[in-house]
Amino acid sequence: MNITIHHRTRHYRTVTFDSRRNAVLLIDQRLLPHQFKIVAQPDYRATAGAIRDMVVRGAGAIGATAAYGLAQAARAFRGGGLQKFTRQIESAFQTLKSARPTAIDPVNAMNAVRRAMQVGRSVQEQQILALEAAEQFAEEDVRHGEAIGRHGARLIRQNARVLTHCNAGWLAFVDVGSATAPLYAAQKAGRKFHVFCDETRPRSQGATLTAWELAHQKISHQIIADNAAGHLMQRGEIDLVIVGSDRTLGRTGEVANKIGTYTKAVLAHRHGIPFYVAIPLSTIDWNLRCGLDIPIEERAESEVLGAWGAAAGSAEMIYVRVANPSSRARNPGFDVTPPELITGIITPVGIIGPKDLWKNRGRLGYEAKGG
Amino acid sequence: MNITIHHRTRHYRTVTFDSRRNAVLLIDQRLLPHQFKIVAQPDYRATAGAIRDMVVRGAGAIGATAAYGLAQAARAFRGGGLQKFTRQIESAFQTLKSARPTAIDPVNAMNAVRRAMQVGRSVQEQQILALEAAEQFAEEDVRHGEAIGRHGARLIRQNARVLTHCNAGWLAFVDVGSATAPLYAAQKAGRKFHVFCDETRPRSQGATLTAWELAHQKISHQIIADNAAGHLMQRGEIDLVIVGSDRTLGRTGEVANKIGTYTKAVLAHRHGIPFYVAIPLSTIDWNLRCGLDIPIEERAESEVLGAWGAAAGSAEMIYVRVANPSSRARNPGFDVTPPELITGIITPVGIIGPKDLWKNRGRLGYEAKGG
Repeated sequence: MNITIHHRTRHYRTVTFDSRRNAVLLIDQRLLPHQFKIVAQPDYRATAGAIRDMVVRGAGAIGATAAYGLAQAARAFRGGGLQKFTRQIESAFQTLKSARPTAIDPVNAMNAVRRAMQVGRSVQEQQILALEAAEQFAEEDVRHGEAIGRHGARLIRQNARVLTHCNAGWLAFVDVGSATAPLYAAQKAGRKFHVFCDETRPRSQGATLTAWELAHQKISHQIIADNAAGHLMQRGEIDLVIVGSDRTLGRTGEVANKIGTYTKAVLAHRHGIPFYVAIPLSTIDWNLRCGLDIPIEERAESEVLGAWGAAAGSAEMIYVRVANPSSRARNPGFDVTPPELITGIITPVGIIGPKDLWKNRGRLGYEAKGG
Repeated sequence: MNITIHHRTRHYRTVTFDSRRNAVLLIDQRLLPHQFKIVAQPDYRATAGAIRDMVVRGAGAIGATAAYGLAQAARAFRGGGLQKFTRQIESAFQTLKSARPTAIDPVNAMNAVRRAMQVGRSVQEQQILALEAAEQFAEEDVRHGEAIGRHGARLIRQNARVLTHCNAGWLAFVDVGSATAPLYAAQKAGRKFHVFCDETRPRSQGATLTAWELAHQKISHQIIADNAAGHLMQRGEIDLVIVGSDRTLGRTGEVANKIGTYTKAVLAHRHGIPFYVAIPLSTIDWNLRCGLDIPIEERAESEVLGAWGAAAGSAEMIYVRVANPSSRARNPGFDVTPPELITGIITPVGIIGPKDLWKNRGRLGYEAKGG
């Protein structure tokens, strides 16, 4: 995405790899929109920490970060045979996977890296293959975003009013994004429309990240409290909902996404408003057979009990305690939307009904497991 | 409500009147839970400003404040006949009414004051009657809360998990409250239960005021993001929803309340979870025939674009900008819930189906208008 900072426009990707320093480079999303800063993670443990602490977040972005993190672990390996190397890779895999348990992209991305590595017959060969596979995952993420845009653009009619939740824009991916890709494609096609961004408490990714992206892209938008969408739907002010996903079950069509997504789906269903989920293929989980089995991350109470922002005249982010000091919070990070509330899944190969994913598994990159 | 501050327990009311200074005394709710401060409004314009700026908020509390404000305007009148006096009262009425257009309590409260005044044959008589009527409204508000508690307590079963939205506790009234009254009564009856408080963005009255009340009352509770209730309902973790109302249409059973209430009603309905609205009689609007005619207040964008809280180690409230600086917001303050989503209305005279309010209008204080 092209970003103009200090009157200078550059193309940025959310996640890149510096092979000379063996470092993963990330836009620090916790500082946006108040500061734009790229930070280097020097080893896979730091990379896992960056995923856990949400320096980087979003399905494809943490997928690519985990893939790079695994390659980083492979390339850092010194002195030892293939067996010891493989054990170290396995340990890095678990560390990177457990950083955000609800998401499937890291698992799928690292599986791709691991599969590619297995062709190599030496540690050195596997080290080279690991980085190649991670780079390939990142490139595929960008191409998937572009394809989602092509398929989804027709849903955005002239003067449409679109609701989004959380951020599934280019910041949530390596570039382009999923839920916002149809918006960017419709804009290129010359259509005018308006976007309502759910602020998406407790981390406010809608108010900070999606709004920041849309402002840079000069797309008409307004931020709303998460409480407001029901009212706007009731008054006929929303035509379409598009969200992303952190894990979509290929066998059932259930969609795990940022907490509050399910609520928006229930509201849209009541009001007969189309509800779409945009995903790259890496977000599909072909194994789980029930949405209740998706692990739902419980995050820190402090996220609900306060807010991060910049005081007047400052770009420095500070935390303020909003809630009653002696009270505690509950903070599930994700929820699961059942397929009957979803109009369609916008994938890189086309728009598919949520219950038809399994039927289309061949086109959707499903690989049957041996054994 | 008994509040302990610096180890000293005192009984406080949210709104009181100091007849010597002709001032309305309010707990400044914008400073809670970080500071407890009582502020005096010296004239009716300041009193209207306090309603508008949410120094005081909540159905009954702004009703009593408006009633006192009208009495305050009456008592401040000097030098002039009854006709001039009546014109001044009318002007104060409009100023106080327009401070929060969605609420009906101020209108009902001030109508009661105006009706009572009309018996007086001189300015001086009317001045005395005005304050008496305002005091009577405040007393009735307290008694209504107690009666709501008696009728609603049976809904709170042992180990119940109750969801609330916004604050309809004693801070929203002169004392006792509406939505929380059944909780306080159930606690007195010895029952144990747990309350989930929606934080209630953008003003966070759930996280600040309801949580503060429940903590003082030693009731088990957790604050959740407004996005989380759908997930908790889906997982079977909520048994009951109780909310308050800013205006309930006696003819249709529609309920205007804090933005996000409608969303919770839709979710509860989908999950077969009982959804109750607790109201004193002053919250009923017997005139409007359609929920769409309820004026929905659009509040300042800054509420959505940032948050008020206390930085670490400080009790001073500061505002932080959370959202992207170049983005704007939409901020409807209320929404309307239709009667088919409401299990029952907990009133001071008993629990009544939302569509049966009109049928029960005699018991509910309806007064047919002449002419």
